[in-house]
Amino acid sequence: MRVTVIAGGVGGARFLRGLRSHLREAYPNGDGGSTAEITAVVNTGDDMWLTGLRVCPDLDSIMYTLGGANDDERGWGRQGESERVSAELTAYGIGWPWFTLGDLDLGTHIARSSFLRDGLTLTEATARLSERWPLGVRLLPMSDQPVETHVEIVVDGKRRIVHFEEWWVKHRAAVPAQRFIQVGVDAAHPTPAVLHAIEHADVIVVAPSNPVVSIGTVLGVPGMRAALKAAKAPVVGVSPIISGAAVRGMADACLTAIGVETTAVAVGKHYGSRARGGLLDAWLIDETDAPGAAVLAAAGIPTTVVPLWMNDPATSAQLAADALAAARR
Amino acid sequence: MRVTVIAGGVGGARFLRGLRSHLREAYPNGDGGSTAEITAVVNTGDDMWLTGLRVCPDLDSIMYTLGGANDDERGWGRQGESERVSAELTAYGIGWPWFTLGDLDLGTHIARSSFLRDGLTLTEATARLSERWPLGVRLLPMSDQPVETHVEIVVDGKRRIVHFEEWWVKHRAAVPAQRFIQVGVDAAHPTPAVLHAIEHADVIVVAPSNPVVSIGTVLGVPGMRAALKAAKAPVVGVSPIISGAAVRGMADACLTAIGVETTAVAVGKHYGSRARGGLLDAWLIDETDAPGAAVLAAAGIPTTVVPLWMNDPATSAQLAADALAAARR
Repeated sequence: MRVTVIAGGVGGARFLRGLRSHLREAYPNGDGGSTAEITAVVNTGDDMWLTGLRVCPDLDSIMYTLGGANDDERGWGRQGESERVSAELTAYGIGWPWFTLGDLDLGTHIARSSFLRDGLTLTEATARLSERWPLGVRLLPMSDQPVETHVEIVVDGKRRIVHFEEWWVKHRAAVPAQRFIQVGVDAAHPTPAVLHAIEHADVIVVAPSNPVVSIGTVLGVPGMRAALKAAKAPVVGVSPIISGAAVRGMADACLTAIGVETTAVAVGKHYGSRARGGLLDAWLIDETDAPGAAVLAAAGIPTTVVPLWMNDPATSAQLAADALAAARR
Repeated sequence: MRVTVIAGGVGGARFLRGLRSHLREAYPNGDGGSTAEITAVVNTGDDMWLTGLRVCPDLDSIMYTLGGANDDERGWGRQGESERVSAELTAYGIGWPWFTLGDLDLGTHIARSSFLRDGLTLTEATARLSERWPLGVRLLPMSDQPVETHVEIVVDGKRRIVHFEEWWVKHRAAVPAQRFIQVGVDAAHPTPAVLHAIEHADVIVVAPSNPVVSIGTVLGVPGMRAALKAAKAPVVGVSPIISGAAVRGMADACLTAIGVETTAVAVGKHYGSRARGGLLDAWLIDETDAPGAAVLAAAGIPTTVVPLWMNDPATSAQLAADALAAARR
């Protein structure tokens, strides 16, 4: 059993943790692990060079969550984090004062940057970092070419283009995004490992991640949609929207910018029916959104209504099981 | 009054702190500072790229000491240091496990590396870092070109060439050095700022630093000796050897490697009389080494016998005063 998951950061991480747990039960290897293989194809559009270090927020969120080191209470970063180095950087007047890098987190960035400067691809650097953690999931960046999401905003009457993280963290996505620009996307392509994971998957899952700046960025890599269309596996998506609101993050601000309503129906239709040239063979929406199922069915998207909240390991694992079951239908 | 000091790390830092203190008393500016100017020309031969970060041990020792942030008890690094990031790097399997970078110290290395990668010279990067600290001394790297000291040693019967820090820290200089190699020295030259500081100095002091791998490395930069010879200022040296032993560090291992005895007399003769083509117009040795003064005088080196131990701010300031007085003779 090989499951390939298209994922952003926090939502993707939670889903992957649940999936890993489900597959260890459903396909046990007798040693606490699973005979099933999980590969995550991860958004790298939030990546940036910050004070000379390569920061990959989504890859790290997933790595820390699956590695058992994520600060679940805060939702991101490492447990027991401190910020002594960042205070030094601020004292030296460098970096973004509103984007604090934790000390433990910095270890990852320093190691990654060192690997990249030694000539490793991001895929190889991610594999080196992953060796340390008991992940049970293979982490793949969507591309080895840098693709950085920038956002056009208007501040004090002036049009500005800022890095996604500046809009997301500094402005808390409260300044309306005029549009998203994927800097570098034209020169990017899915890695051979990503293409292999899509081609040889038994099931492909679109995680409940931001449909615009996480999943949308992955899908925007030239060749990615074609690979997904050509895959023999069914593609099942999990709605990141429940009852008209993003489960986490500020997906509504992103959806609004691209003219899509913040509803499970609108996002499902935005992804589109695979039978009609879109992405999805199946779509999971929450029970509270059940009335939308008929609209989705009419749009050619087979929809399953299940509880979508991932409150704990048990509900997360159940959601993963539901997604795989929907894919089999 | 302009004093230019050729300096290595710890010994140089202590001497500079004493000199700053003395000049604030001798040439007060009415505001707690001094009208005198101190410029330190600092050895960069111990510098290295470590996990993608540029580490400059001597510049940092001086910056932290003059900035009041040095861990005087340990002798190097920052007060109140922690090593959380280094533990992460070790967990990722990168870096030198025997060369721990403190968290606060890492802030300096990250900032410096970022400046260098932005295209600043090391001189400019050092000035940017210095802005943060109340130094009262202008810090100048000896050169903007990297010059890294490597050491030839024999380990398990095999000839190996290792970075100076590996020999110094990992091997505690206990493995005999066959020779020192200044990697990059042929392409290096003193910076314009260094040449200006030497040309326009009223006094030039050779700090009580390691004569081989600190002072020797500075002197080895092509053009440096010629600049010192041409300087109108007297050159006064302070012996780093007292009673046949290095005051700090393992200078004896370095001196032995180049065939120089570990005595104040031998080091004075190694530097040589300026009147006879060497470096020194004056040489300070400790009271315990007083019997050697006659030998030094015979070698054309005017020698002053004073207490050399820098035990506290008062003795350090007195030593600086003694050095300036010797230069005036």
